[in-house]
Amino acid sequence: MCVFVQKAAVDRVLSAFRSICGEDCVSLGEAVREQHGKDESVHKCRPPDVVVFPRCVEEVSSLAKVCHDHNLPIIPFGTGTGLEGGVGAVKGGVCFSLRNMEQILDLHQEDFDVTVEPGVTRKTLNAYLRDTGLWFPVDPGADASLCGMAATSASGTNAVRYGTMRENVMNLEVVLSNGTVIHTAGKGRRPRKTSAGYNLTNLFVGSEGTLGIITKTTLRLYGIPESMVSAVCSFPSVQAAVDSTVQILQAGVPVARIEFLDDVMIDACNKFSSLSYPVTPTLFLEFHGSERSLEEQVATAEEITQSNEGSDFQWAQDAETRNRLWKARHDAWYAAQALRPGCKAYSTDVCVPLSRLPQIIVETKKDLLESRLTGPIAGHVGDGNFHCLMVVDPNDPDELHRVHLFTERLAR
Amino acid sequence: MCVFVQKAAVDRVLSAFRSICGEDCVSLGEAVREQHGKDESVHKCRPPDVVVFPRCVEEVSSLAKVCHDHNLPIIPFGTGTGLEGGVGAVKGGVCFSLRNMEQILDLHQEDFDVTVEPGVTRKTLNAYLRDTGLWFPVDPGADASLCGMAATSASGTNAVRYGTMRENVMNLEVVLSNGTVIHTAGKGRRPRKTSAGYNLTNLFVGSEGTLGIITKTTLRLYGIPESMVSAVCSFPSVQAAVDSTVQILQAGVPVARIEFLDDVMIDACNKFSSLSYPVTPTLFLEFHGSERSLEEQVATAEEITQSNEGSDFQWAQDAETRNRLWKARHDAWYAAQALRPGCKAYSTDVCVPLSRLPQIIVETKKDLLESRLTGPIAGHVGDGNFHCLMVVDPNDPDELHRVHLFTERLAR
Ligand SMILES: Cc1cc2nc3c(=O)[nH]c(=O)nc-3n(C[C@H](O)[C@H](O)[C@H](O)COP(=O)(O)OP(=O)(O)OC[C@H]3O[C@@H](n4cnc5c(N)ncnc54)[C@H](O)[C@@H]3O)c2cc1C
Ligand SMILES: Cc1cc2nc3c(=O)[nH]c(=O)nc-3n(C[C@H](O)[C@H](O)[C@H](O)COP(=O)(O)OP(=O)(O)OC[C@H]3O[C@@H](n4cnc5c(N)ncnc54)[C@H](O)[C@@H]3O)c2cc1C
Repeated sequence: MCVFVQKAAVDRVLSAFRSICGEDCVSLGEAVREQHGKDESVHKCRPPDVVVFPRCVEEVSSLAKVCHDHNLPIIPFGTGTGLEGGVGAVKGGVCFSLRNMEQILDLHQEDFDVTVEPGVTRKTLNAYLRDTGLWFPVDPGADASLCGMAATSASGTNAVRYGTMRENVMNLEVVLSNGTVIHTAGKGRRPRKTSAGYNLTNLFVGSEGTLGIITKTTLRLYGIPESMVSAVCSFPSVQAAVDSTVQILQAGVPVARIEFLDDVMIDACNKFSSLSYPVTPTLFLEFHGSERSLEEQVATAEEITQSNEGSDFQWAQDAETRNRLWKARHDAWYAAQALRPGCKAYSTDVCVPLSRLPQIIVETKKDLLESRLTGPIAGHVGDGNFHCLMVVDPNDPDELHRVHLFTERLAR
Repeated sequence: MCVFVQKAAVDRVLSAFRSICGEDCVSLGEAVREQHGKDESVHKCRPPDVVVFPRCVEEVSSLAKVCHDHNLPIIPFGTGTGLEGGVGAVKGGVCFSLRNMEQILDLHQEDFDVTVEPGVTRKTLNAYLRDTGLWFPVDPGADASLCGMAATSASGTNAVRYGTMRENVMNLEVVLSNGTVIHTAGKGRRPRKTSAGYNLTNLFVGSEGTLGIITKTTLRLYGIPESMVSAVCSFPSVQAAVDSTVQILQAGVPVARIEFLDDVMIDACNKFSSLSYPVTPTLFLEFHGSERSLEEQVATAEEITQSNEGSDFQWAQDAETRNRLWKARHDAWYAAQALRPGCKAYSTDVCVPLSRLPQIIVETKKDLLESRLTGPIAGHVGDGNFHCLMVVDPNDPDELHRVHLFTERLAR
């Protein structure tokens, strides 16, 4: 083990770990370490030296203190769905796998908030909430842990309506590297608004595990809308699809989701998810609201898409058809990979002002073509955000080089 | 001057200031210093030793560097509308009055954003935007500088719909105490969403001038709604008014403003603003949207208020009547003061989960009565936030003592 220099020190640390959380909760097994050294991305597996499985904040704190005293890196692990390789133990160290902390605490229905531990995922929470009429809408596709979503400041297909984690985390319990436990908005507090002190909550949201281990997150909930409907609309050009998005937002339509897929991406989704949408730039849309407001939202949106030469809407009304549609969108990542079996996908994340989006997507597609690269594009266009999913043969150095040059140009 | 120990040092500093921004922009005059030592609150005037009036970020940076080198406190000054005494020079030092930096820069209509300097107030910006169909909705009542609003993380009557400064600042240019200029979201960037690096923007939002001087803020704009209508509704009890608020929010009505005023407060507003609303717990509401969505919002809200024994809505439809209504609400501060001429008002700011609000307001009113104190209550109830405006005779030590005990109880 790279950081455990002396055998005696290793034994001391491990026995300290075991005395804190028991034999079963400390693992040195290779399979377990491998499994905790990588996420869903193409990044190489960097296994930690040991994986611990604490069951409560006190254990997390005591374990962290041991690491701190022995100068060992700490890597928090949620559900490993990240796309940035954040869980890799690049300097070895101790992975804190938090899946055993799975309580849902303090549901306040009338205040629209709930507190969850790091083992609770988005879907688990929503299943738990089903009968309350409430839900937590932030949806990055993956069934990630909510604390991991807070750590990565996750966004998702409906950020345009409900915001990202940044807008929806009200408080965090965090164990700092030396074992100190803090509550970013004050212990037991779940304020909508706060004006006292620095905004620590949002410093920890998006800190990717570098500032501490999130052991609880208090989240803002929403009423489940009376009605929902999804629609698919095909366009003759990228410009037409993006212009429609901008105009729909400018018209103040409170659209819940509006996602762009380019021709390559929709083709990949058709194949992967057995769909049959026309292979042209496409928008997936979703509307939430009362029956009446839905009618109005849809009418305005249709008027705008048609003025941009969009096709008639293809509807997805019932929950099953809607789920199938959005599952296809969320599986875009795997659909892209399936375009070239044996290849690995990795995602670039570009965020630009809305007005520059059409031009940048068009230029990016031209660049991909010229660089002979496979890069389907999907975007949360409502946020000016798109991903170009690079599908790369990891054994082709020339291709890797072209990808490298391409992503450098894209970042500029 | 308390901090300028030696005459020679004083002269050196002042001449450095003058060479940076010219004779006219450095003031030692007593009136100017007095004016910059206090805000709208009851806090005692604490004049700075000198006031500088920089005209651009370069001047702010150079002046800050001189202060840094001579260990002088820096106090940024926006429009002095704060209610917390934040501009008081408690240790002397140099007040940076930013009113000469009044450019509105980089309006991007299609991206819904704009960048402003610290001399630009909320009303100036909205006047500038009038013909674009866009507006900046955050409205704390006072015509404060937008950078000062960012510095204090200002909220306001329509936070329930549009959020506070925290949700609406996209980037800040900040001069740190040693003169370094940073851009919290990256230079020239105005992302809707950002996932790279720590969330510095929101660390500076609400930092009250303690981390640096905000010299530019990039703000998110909104389309002006097609229709707006305001309404006033009287209730038999605090509970009924607050319950209505909770139910309106739970029903998902996207109400733009919903403000609670207790009987003492509405009485004060009636007197101060020549109105004649019934002297009982009251809600002021406002709805924004298309004609149709407005109808639906109003219908749902009325159904709820009536089921809580609220009165019929008194409407304010045209812009003038609406402005009069909200001006009365925003003047609540002065109305409270006018209840007892010669007295000073100061505000307590309480934020609790919605479900606890009725009980806490009822208990607070009882406590006020028992403590023989004047404390009308107004609240952004949609956020679980209320202010008890204490009106106090500053020359009555016994009353001051009772206020002190009361606010301690309230904080608990
Ligand atoms: C198919 C797919 C599509 C996706 N689409 C999107 C998208 O559209 N938008 C988007 O924003 N994201 C997207 N993601 C990424 C997603 O947001 C992350 O996977 C998720 O937020 C990470 O949660 P996790 O629990 O799996 O974290 P992990 O992968 O376990 O960890 C991610 C990082 O957070 C840290 N971390 C995890 N838990 C904690 C904790 N409790 N305390 C402190 N640090 C912690 C880790 O150390 C690591 O650095 C997508 C992922 C997949 C697989
Ligand atoms: C009648 C009335 C009603 C109000 N109601 C509300 C309300 O409902 N909700 C609410 O949130 N607020 C309310 N306020 C307070 C309001 O939010 C503040 O007055 C405003 O945000 C401060 O802006 P300013 O430019 O006047 O700042 P100032 O009063 O000049 O300064 C306030 C603080 O911010 C710092 N500061 C100012 N400018 C900068 C800068 N450019 N860079 C760094 N630091 C700076 C100062 O040093 C000081 O600490 C109300 C005020 C009044 C008078």
